Amino acid sequence: MLTYDLEARGPLARYDYLYQCIKEDILSGRLRAGEKLPSKRALAAHLDTAVVTVETAYAQLTAEGWLQAEERRGYFVSAVEVRPQTGEVSVPSEEEQERSWLLDLGGGGGGTEGFPFSLWAKLTRRVLTERGEALLRALPHSGAPELRRALARHLYTFRGIQARPEQIVVGAGTEYLYNLIVQLLGREKVYGLEDPGYAKAERVYRLNGARCLSLPVDSQGVPLEALEEGLDVLHISPNHQFPTGVVTPIARRQGMLRWAAGGGYIIEDDYDSEFRFTGRPIPALQSIDRGERVIYVNTFSRSLAPSLRIGYMVLPQTLVGAYREKLGFYSCTVPAIEQYTLAAFLEEGRFDAHISRMRTSYRSQRDAILRTIRSSPLGGRCRVLREEAGLHFLLELDTGRGDGELARLAAERGVRLSFLTDFQRAEGRAEPHTLIVSYPGLDPEQLSRGLEQVAGLL
Amino acid sequence: MLTYDLEARGPLARYDYLYQCIKEDILSGRLRAGEKLPSKRALAAHLDTAVVTVETAYAQLTAEGWLQAEERRGYFVSAVEVRPQTGEVSVPSEEEQERSWLLDLGGGGGGTEGFPFSLWAKLTRRVLTERGEALLRALPHSGAPELRRALARHLYTFRGIQARPEQIVVGAGTEYLYNLIVQLLGREKVYGLEDPGYAKAERVYRLNGARCLSLPVDSQGVPLEALEEGLDVLHISPNHQFPTGVVTPIARRQGMLRWAAGGGYIIEDDYDSEFRFTGRPIPALQSIDRGERVIYVNTFSRSLAPSLRIGYMVLPQTLVGAYREKLGFYSCTVPAIEQYTLAAFLEEGRFDAHISRMRTSYRSQRDAILRTIRSSPLGGRCRVLREEAGLHFLLELDTGRGDGELARLAAERGVRLSFLTDFQRAEGRAEPHTLIVSYPGLDPEQLSRGLEQVAGLL
Repeated sequence: MLTYDLEARGPLARYDYLYQCIKEDILSGRLRAGEKLPSKRALAAHLDTAVVTVETAYAQLTAEGWLQAEERRGYFVSAVEVRPQTGEVSVPSEEEQERSWLLDLGGGGGGTEGFPFSLWAKLTRRVLTERGEALLRALPHSGAPELRRALARHLYTFRGIQARPEQIVVGAGTEYLYNLIVQLLGREKVYGLEDPGYAKAERVYRLNGARCLSLPVDSQGVPLEALEEGLDVLHISPNHQFPTGVVTPIARRQGMLRWAAGGGYIIEDDYDSEFRFTGRPIPALQSIDRGERVIYVNTFSRSLAPSLRIGYMVLPQTLVGAYREKLGFYSCTVPAIEQYTLAAFLEEGRFDAHISRMRTSYRSQRDAILRTIRSSPLGGRCRVLREEAGLHFLLELDTGRGDGELARLAAERGVRLSFLTDFQRAEGRAEPHTLIVSYPGLDPEQLSRGLEQVAGLL
Repeated sequence: MLTYDLEARGPLARYDYLYQCIKEDILSGRLRAGEKLPSKRALAAHLDTAVVTVETAYAQLTAEGWLQAEERRGYFVSAVEVRPQTGEVSVPSEEEQERSWLLDLGGGGGGTEGFPFSLWAKLTRRVLTERGEALLRALPHSGAPELRRALARHLYTFRGIQARPEQIVVGAGTEYLYNLIVQLLGREKVYGLEDPGYAKAERVYRLNGARCLSLPVDSQGVPLEALEEGLDVLHISPNHQFPTGVVTPIARRQGMLRWAAGGGYIIEDDYDSEFRFTGRPIPALQSIDRGERVIYVNTFSRSLAPSLRIGYMVLPQTLVGAYREKLGFYSCTVPAIEQYTLAAFLEEGRFDAHISRMRTSYRSQRDAILRTIRSSPLGGRCRVLREEAGLHFLLELDTGRGDGELARLAAERGVRLSFLTDFQRAEGRAEPHTLIVSYPGLDPEQLSRGLEQVAGLL
């Protein structure tokens, strides 16, 4: 006779649990097609439950086709396909095939060290308790008002940005927001991007069918001469350009805003402005824009954790109406729990405290890595550049070898090198012989051994 | 002297909390530009803490520019802009301006009734505890393997779909997934959509620059003759068409698959297949597709809660490689916590149990609403259609008035009516005089009063 422990049913009703158990046994093949089930009365007695419980379970199973009822004869298991081994035989996916390195200078660190997980978990639990079922209601398309208000205050304190909560749009990461931006501004527009630069932004624009121009980067960012006619939208990271680390000075910023005043838009990607070690933070370009031409974009993936898909953008006031009309039908892509947790994290000063702590931690990590480099065999044959901000710096190598050759030779020795030239789209746009060192999480011991290998290759 | 309760610091370090307090006072204007702060020693004594605590707080504030240190004179508040009233003066947003109705037949119900919130919250808490910091790591672009395996098993049991976890892509809602689909299949393709139909899908395709054709819907769904030359991708809901409720029978499904075998793709939108009250669930079109031409799309927004932005699609095996190459660079848009919580919810049979319960609940809600309609003054002048599945049914009215006129007159009486014709794009595509009744959450009392009003208008 079928034996199930009805006490193990958890929050399920008895009949529901019994229904699940029998279905599971049919699917797994333990109950076979054509097999006769015990009578309702017999099974109820055996399981010490009411006949109506078994009756309801059998009725549900029959309605869904798992059982067939034959008059006066009883219930029989239907012929259904038994569950295949879906999911058990798994081909290695591309993410599992990733190589592990002795040393990865180009970004091995996960970037989650130092994240106050237990505090975040505590806030999440509190949000679950305090908000309860209200968490289930759909949120406004641009995000929870509480979070947008907290972001507005945060942006003012941190970045000098004066934004009304209505100008802020919360979305599942910056890549998603770039998609929205193209849909807002139009795919017939020409988008200019820094070269070398962040490749994903250009991929998103191209996937959306927009034409992209690749713009040079000099020691102050994109030169004004490059904002030639035919460019409609300028996508830049003026506060810490990736990967060169260049900061665009005020005079050039003003020039860019003058250009935009002629009908262009600037997308300001402020991806790691939180981590500046020397002097005051660089004010956002948006904060000096008087012409409503800058769309400011930032994310918490880098300042908190990569798995936290929360990005946001600040639209110019003049675009808020068009956004609502064109894209306001989209549902907000970030779940309510994360939005309220982040709002509390910001409002209670936890984010500021986290960033202060991380700034100190990164500064000392960076210093340790710089000491290791200087005392290594490579020390005499390289120059450190742009170490005053962000989570990477540059290392100019004194070598005659090409970047591709060096990368290949180093890879054979287990060291992954990442060069500025890896991020260029047009030949000659990036300085050669310049390594990008992404230092968070680098182990000085491993670095020391890796650098010895590299020094031998120059 | 500045007085702060260091015992109220929560998990923050003393210096960090003190730093926050002083910064807050500067921002709020309580500490004014030029004001001198107490000496480190004096403040430490006043707050009963170590001198080093105050020293560290002052150093941080000085580094960030909130204070200025003057040699031998002490610390002074810098001239910074005091916080504006951002967020306090809030213009009413469009979502706050929404009208409230005496009766809303077109979808007033929030759809969150019956969601097992406390169970979901419990699972979320468990995921936080069990997975801990591992939740912070970035997930594969197509979603957590655990969730994709759970979905594969669920799809097999529930919908007869045989899918490997590698074919599944998890994303923040179906609208987001439609964006990905256009980027995968190409915007130069022509997309055919049901008319009347779900308007958002077409909006997304159009925003992506794709050409859309509007296809008629007869009593079996889109007729095969409508799959004329020039159509590349067919977007349909064959298991319960929205809004007509039509189910496409097997013969026509086979015809659609034959059409697709010639090079087309079918996007199967299975948005509310969970709720069928009579007979077996309709097997998904994907489950009989032998030619790898169907992309299956579904969401948990309707079966669980609208604020839960988790959708997924099942790609044909033959598109998995192209997807990885073209779109694999995107980060997954659903946070890790939600993904693991949903995986547990599915694996432990909670979703099945929830759906069974809701099916029963919806069936009795529907029956109560149908009884109310039949016994109302409208009872003799309408015919109920397509009540055997889904969260809405149709009500054919015996009236000479046009739909627009009726809707306007009813609105004046506080009743919101929604007609099939509201969902048509081309004139004459939808039957006139046919109301859509979205019944979850409708109150029979209110309905009764509302129907009296409507009956008086026919």
